[in-house]
Amino acid sequence: MTSQDTTLDEIIRGIQPVDTHWIEKARERTAQLVMPTRALGRMHDLAEKLCAIRQTLTPAIARKAILVMAGDHGAVSDGVSAYPQEVTGAMVQTFLHGGAAINAISRHVGAEVRVVDIGIIPELDPSRLDSGNRFMVHKIAKGTANLVKGPAMDRSDAEKAVRIGFDLASEMIRSGIQILGTGDMGIGNTTPSAAIGAVITGTDLDRMVGRGTGVDDEGLARKRAAIRKAIDVNQPDSADGIDVLAKVGGFEIGGIAGAVLAGAFHRCPVVVDGFISTAGALIAHTLCPTVTDYLFSGHVSEESGHPHMLAYLGLEPILNLNMRLGEGTGGALAMSVLDAAVKVFTEVLTFAEAGVPDKE
Amino acid sequence: MTSQDTTLDEIIRGIQPVDTHWIEKARERTAQLVMPTRALGRMHDLAEKLCAIRQTLTPAIARKAILVMAGDHGAVSDGVSAYPQEVTGAMVQTFLHGGAAINAISRHVGAEVRVVDIGIIPELDPSRLDSGNRFMVHKIAKGTANLVKGPAMDRSDAEKAVRIGFDLASEMIRSGIQILGTGDMGIGNTTPSAAIGAVITGTDLDRMVGRGTGVDDEGLARKRAAIRKAIDVNQPDSADGIDVLAKVGGFEIGGIAGAVLAGAFHRCPVVVDGFISTAGALIAHTLCPTVTDYLFSGHVSEESGHPHMLAYLGLEPILNLNMRLGEGTGGALAMSVLDAAVKVFTEVLTFAEAGVPDKE
Repeated sequence: MTSQDTTLDEIIRGIQPVDTHWIEKARERTAQLVMPTRALGRMHDLAEKLCAIRQTLTPAIARKAILVMAGDHGAVSDGVSAYPQEVTGAMVQTFLHGGAAINAISRHVGAEVRVVDIGIIPELDPSRLDSGNRFMVHKIAKGTANLVKGPAMDRSDAEKAVRIGFDLASEMIRSGIQILGTGDMGIGNTTPSAAIGAVITGTDLDRMVGRGTGVDDEGLARKRAAIRKAIDVNQPDSADGIDVLAKVGGFEIGGIAGAVLAGAFHRCPVVVDGFISTAGALIAHTLCPTVTDYLFSGHVSEESGHPHMLAYLGLEPILNLNMRLGEGTGGALAMSVLDAAVKVFTEVLTFAEAGVPDKE
Repeated sequence: MTSQDTTLDEIIRGIQPVDTHWIEKARERTAQLVMPTRALGRMHDLAEKLCAIRQTLTPAIARKAILVMAGDHGAVSDGVSAYPQEVTGAMVQTFLHGGAAINAISRHVGAEVRVVDIGIIPELDPSRLDSGNRFMVHKIAKGTANLVKGPAMDRSDAEKAVRIGFDLASEMIRSGIQILGTGDMGIGNTTPSAAIGAVITGTDLDRMVGRGTGVDDEGLARKRAAIRKAIDVNQPDSADGIDVLAKVGGFEIGGIAGAVLAGAFHRCPVVVDGFISTAGALIAHTLCPTVTDYLFSGHVSEESGHPHMLAYLGLEPILNLNMRLGEGTGGALAMSVLDAAVKVFTEVLTFAEAGVPDKE
C-alpha cells in the first residue's frame, strides 16, 4: 500500500515481476481441459497471464472499470486536429451523460466509467454534471503548452500527472476494482502520442504519425512537421520517461502512465486501449519495464504508429477491428474476451471430470 | 415460412439478397454518432450488416443460440485424427452437462446451446441426458462411410442432412432466436472439411489440410494422402454442393449448410464458427451464393486452410485468437462483439443530441 508520500522511485521499486510459477501451474490446468491441446489458442494465454498476475487459479475480473483521462493540448493551435478544441470538454460531458461509445461498450461488458479532468480547458462542475462520483477534477493546467514551441509542461507537472493517475487508479483498485482499462479524451492528443512513440521506440516519424481523428493529406503533412519540430526544439531524452512526457507529452498521457504503474504495483491487470493509452504505457515502461507483466493490449488501432508501439512493448493485441476512437473503447471491448478466457479456464471440465478419453 | 414439403429448390429460390438501401440508411446514422467518422472501424460495418439483414435501424440480437451438429466419420479408420472416435459421443454428453468450452462461452454471451445427433455412432438417450430439450436426435446413420474408399454418404442422405439443419434452424428462428451460431462436433471432421475446401475453393490441398485436433507430421502426411485419395476416388463436382457433400463431406457439415440456408431464408444473421462450419457454409454457398449476405465469420481458425475458405466467401473474420476448437466457440465469442456493435449503433448519441461540435 502507498500513501500520498510514497515517491515515484518507491513506487517503481515496489513493482515486482509476476511469478512465472503461476503461469506453469495455470498451463497444467489448461492441459487438462476437455479439448485438444491448447485448442483455444490465445484464450489460454490470456487466462494464464491473469492467473500469474493475481497469483491464483481462479482469477476474478468481474469488477471492471475504465479510467478515462481528459486533457487539452496547446499543439491544437498548429492545426494538428480535424476537430475543434471545444470537443474535449463537450465529450467529457457526453461521457458523464452516458452517451458516448465508451459508455455503451462499458455497459455491455459491465465496467464502470470514471472520468478525470487532469488538464482540460473548460471548468466543468462535478456537482452539476455527476451524481455518482464518476467525475474527478485534478486539473494540472488548462491544457498543455504548445510542444512545437517548447516543453508541453514542466517536469514537476509531468511527475504530478503520473502521480494523479497512480493515486486515482490505486484508490479504485483498493475499493475492489479487479481489472482496469485505460481511456483518454483530448483533441490533438495523437500528436504528443506520436512524438512519444517516435522518441521512445525509435520508429521513423513518418510511420509513427497517422491521421488521428481524420486530418486530410495537408493536415497530415502539417502534423508531421509539427511533431518533427517539437522533437527538434525539445530534444527529449528517450531514456527518461518523465522528460519525454514533460517535453512532448500530455497530461492525460501522464495520468495513463500512472494508472499503468498502479496496476503493476497492486498486481491488478490493466487493459491498455489504443494509440494514446499505449503512449502512456510507453512512458510507464521507460520508468519500469516490468509493467508489461501486468498489461494487456485491448486492440491494435487503425492509427498507423500503434503496431510499432505494441511491438516495442512486446504486447500482442486481443482485438483487431480497425478501431481508432480512443476513450478506452478497445480496452473495454477486449474485457469481454478476457472474461470469456477466465470462464473457459475455470468452468470447463477436465478430461477426467467429463469422462472423455484423451489423445491416444 | 416453409413447411416440411418445401423443396430445396424452393428454399434456394426463397433466399433474397439484403436490401442495400438499409446499409445506406444505417451508414447515415453511423455518420451522425458522436465520434470521428467511422472511428470504430469494423464495429460499424457489423452493425450496418445486421440492420440490412433485419431491415431495421434497431436490430435486436439478444436471443442467441448455438446449434451444434454432431456426426461421426468413417475416415477415422485411416488414422486422420489424434483422438479416438468415442470422443464424439463423449463430448456430446459433455455439452449436455454444460461442461465444455462452448457451454462456458455461450453462458458468457447469453446464448442457448442446442445439440443435434445427426449421425454419431453411439445411441444417446435424450430423456436421460437432457431435461431442457437441448438435445435432438435426427441420426441419418451411425457415422459416414470412409470417403477414402467411396462416397461418404448417398446423395439422398446429403440432401437429408441439409434439410435437417434447415428445419431445426428454421424452428429455432420461428421460436424467437434472433442470431444463430453454427457449431460442430465430430472426431475426424477436419478431413471432410479440408476436402470440401479444396474442391470448392480450388485451393491447393497441401495448404487446405492442417493438423486438426493435433496430428503429428506423420499423421498430417497420412491425412493429406487420405484426402487426396478421397478426391481422386470420388471425383466430386465442385459446382454441385450436394455432390461434394455426399462424396467427401459429413452429416454435421450438411446440417450446418442447412442452418446457413435457414438463416438466409428467414433473414436471420448466422455467425459461422471455424473450419468445419465454414466448410458447411461453402456447401450452402454453392447452392445459393446469396447466403453470404446473412453470414458473419466469427473468427479465423488456426487451421491452415481456414483463411482460404473465408477469402473465397468474401468474409472477414471478427476475431483472430488462434483458436481451433470448433464446437461453435469462435462464433459464440464473436456474438459479444456483435452485441457491442449493435449497442454502439443504437445507444451512442448523435453530435446534435450530445451538443458536441462536429468537424470544422
